[in-house]
Amino acid sequence: MLTDIALDAMGSDKAPEPEIRGAIAACTHLPVRVHLVGPQDVLRRALSAHLNGQQLPIEIVHASEHIAMDEKAAHAVRAKKDSSMRVGLKLVREKRVAGFFTAGNTGAGMATAKMVLGALPGVDRPALAIVVPTLSGSPTILLDVGANVDCKPQNLEQFAVMGEMYARSVLKIARPRVGILSVGEEEGKGNDLTREAWALLKQLPINFIGNVEGRDIYNGSCDVIVCDGFVGNVALKTSEGLTRLVREMLKASLTTTVTAQVGALLSRKAFNAFKRRLDPSEYGGAPLLGVRGVCIIGHGSSNDRAVMNGIRVAAEFAQAGINDGIEREFSQRPVTETDQPSVDPNLPLQ
Amino acid sequence: MLTDIALDAMGSDKAPEPEIRGAIAACTHLPVRVHLVGPQDVLRRALSAHLNGQQLPIEIVHASEHIAMDEKAAHAVRAKKDSSMRVGLKLVREKRVAGFFTAGNTGAGMATAKMVLGALPGVDRPALAIVVPTLSGSPTILLDVGANVDCKPQNLEQFAVMGEMYARSVLKIARPRVGILSVGEEEGKGNDLTREAWALLKQLPINFIGNVEGRDIYNGSCDVIVCDGFVGNVALKTSEGLTRLVREMLKASLTTTVTAQVGALLSRKAFNAFKRRLDPSEYGGAPLLGVRGVCIIGHGSSNDRAVMNGIRVAAEFAQAGINDGIEREFSQRPVTETDQPSVDPNLPLQ
Repeated sequence: MLTDIALDAMGSDKAPEPEIRGAIAACTHLPVRVHLVGPQDVLRRALSAHLNGQQLPIEIVHASEHIAMDEKAAHAVRAKKDSSMRVGLKLVREKRVAGFFTAGNTGAGMATAKMVLGALPGVDRPALAIVVPTLSGSPTILLDVGANVDCKPQNLEQFAVMGEMYARSVLKIARPRVGILSVGEEEGKGNDLTREAWALLKQLPINFIGNVEGRDIYNGSCDVIVCDGFVGNVALKTSEGLTRLVREMLKASLTTTVTAQVGALLSRKAFNAFKRRLDPSEYGGAPLLGVRGVCIIGHGSSNDRAVMNGIRVAAEFAQAGINDGIEREFSQRPVTETDQPSVDPNLPLQ
Repeated sequence: MLTDIALDAMGSDKAPEPEIRGAIAACTHLPVRVHLVGPQDVLRRALSAHLNGQQLPIEIVHASEHIAMDEKAAHAVRAKKDSSMRVGLKLVREKRVAGFFTAGNTGAGMATAKMVLGALPGVDRPALAIVVPTLSGSPTILLDVGANVDCKPQNLEQFAVMGEMYARSVLKIARPRVGILSVGEEEGKGNDLTREAWALLKQLPINFIGNVEGRDIYNGSCDVIVCDGFVGNVALKTSEGLTRLVREMLKASLTTTVTAQVGALLSRKAFNAFKRRLDPSEYGGAPLLGVRGVCIIGHGSSNDRAVMNGIRVAAEFAQAGINDGIEREFSQRPVTETDQPSVDPNLPLQ
């Protein structure tokens, strides 16, 4: 049986090309049916040009508008009632598809998902999670990386529950180690938020290992790392900036001398292997955890491979039944009261 | 005329070897006199073995104790009254030397400097700054990266003044661009701290460019980036972790195939050039800004080159008269009232 996934065909920087090629790749390699959401005339033409007569389970769902990468999310979400994001997420709400993927404006994607799908019972603030490669080979989940600034300890507690569930269900880690991102490993270290969150997390029926530090994001010593959205976003963006610096420096170093140029040519294959391991397109985008439905948000620079992986992650997320698990988890324990969510739908992640 | 610099001979992971070789290199290449602080018998023997009869302006100052890398800073600072850090910083206070460098326990170094030297008038909380390489080729200063969690907006304002002064005086940037590390560029973006700090920074007579993001740390679009010590420490440690991951991945990729091995051999020179650019040992350690004296703190893994560069930075810092500049700056404007400093001397940076 095929899993139905809605795909925002107008999301990425080069849309709809990567989306159409990604949908074709996904339907070729994975047991999925893709619902391409966007302007039907444009999509129909482009799709038939690429399919070239081939029969694949791809359907087109019309949406007359789309939200640009540099649009202010709060305004766009309200104003564009027929955006490809909104139409795609409505398919999720109406259970016509099992999940949704977009490589578009992150702030708009989160805001639209919260508006169209709503939060799961017990979740005050949905969180955006990223899955990063580590030294140990096993990936680490970091959340929240973009949705919530100025969190309460209870938010970090909820992030821990949701992240742990994702690690178990999708990443198949039997007993995920959960830590709080802080500036020292001992219990007393950190700021008011992390100290109060510590007290809450150690009560949870999870494998809580205490505080971890920034370097632990990439060394594989912890499977799920929670932090407020401000700190998580800084860590994510700092990593993006440093990756770019490293790439440019290597390129510059390698073209300096003729010997180095020959060396670079010979080791290009190895470089490509390395790049693939660090490449976000292999990781298929960031899941938005805590909304009533499956929503995965990819990078604006997504290529067809990244789109295919985003579709794959959406399907795996849906099949793992994570949202049922999160709901069950929160219904079984006393809900800690927090204030009203104060999400910032303008927050640009990319 | 030689500049006198005190060097904690017992700081680094492999002390005193890197310190002794670094002191010799510094005295050979720079107009400095180095005061090696540590157990005199040990140092005398090691120094004479390395000097091999050569005459250099290196003096030994006895200190019977030293603080280990894994010791709790608060306790060690109180208990070890004759530590090499304390003795070295006393030389600064007594104006027998112009500055101090240690590659030891960062938390202990900061706490000892604050205790022995005290804060400059107008500075509520000294800040640890790092200087990082960027895409543009011009370095960026990020502060605070370790001393102060839970900052007030006024602390960020003071960090901006101190960082700007350092950029002008030591890095010779004529009109440094100063930004606040946040999660979006517009004024309203960020958390309560960054929004309130924005209002204060735009009143300052500096080239304030508003919010910057994590990726801007490494792209050279901003010269001085301020943030609270929690966020700065996460950014710094995340960078360290990612750099290590990249190094290991590259190594693994390059030894996978024989062709790649040949390539790696040929491009080794280029790699080394690249490594040097990213290498913290080239940047000579992190200045602690806002104390009454010059204190530079290096990484525990410092080699002799890093120690020499630390000594160089201490001498340049002293000659630039930054502390006089900071004092003048704060005396010329109304001091914004803040609460008592609540520094965390336990904070481990390395």
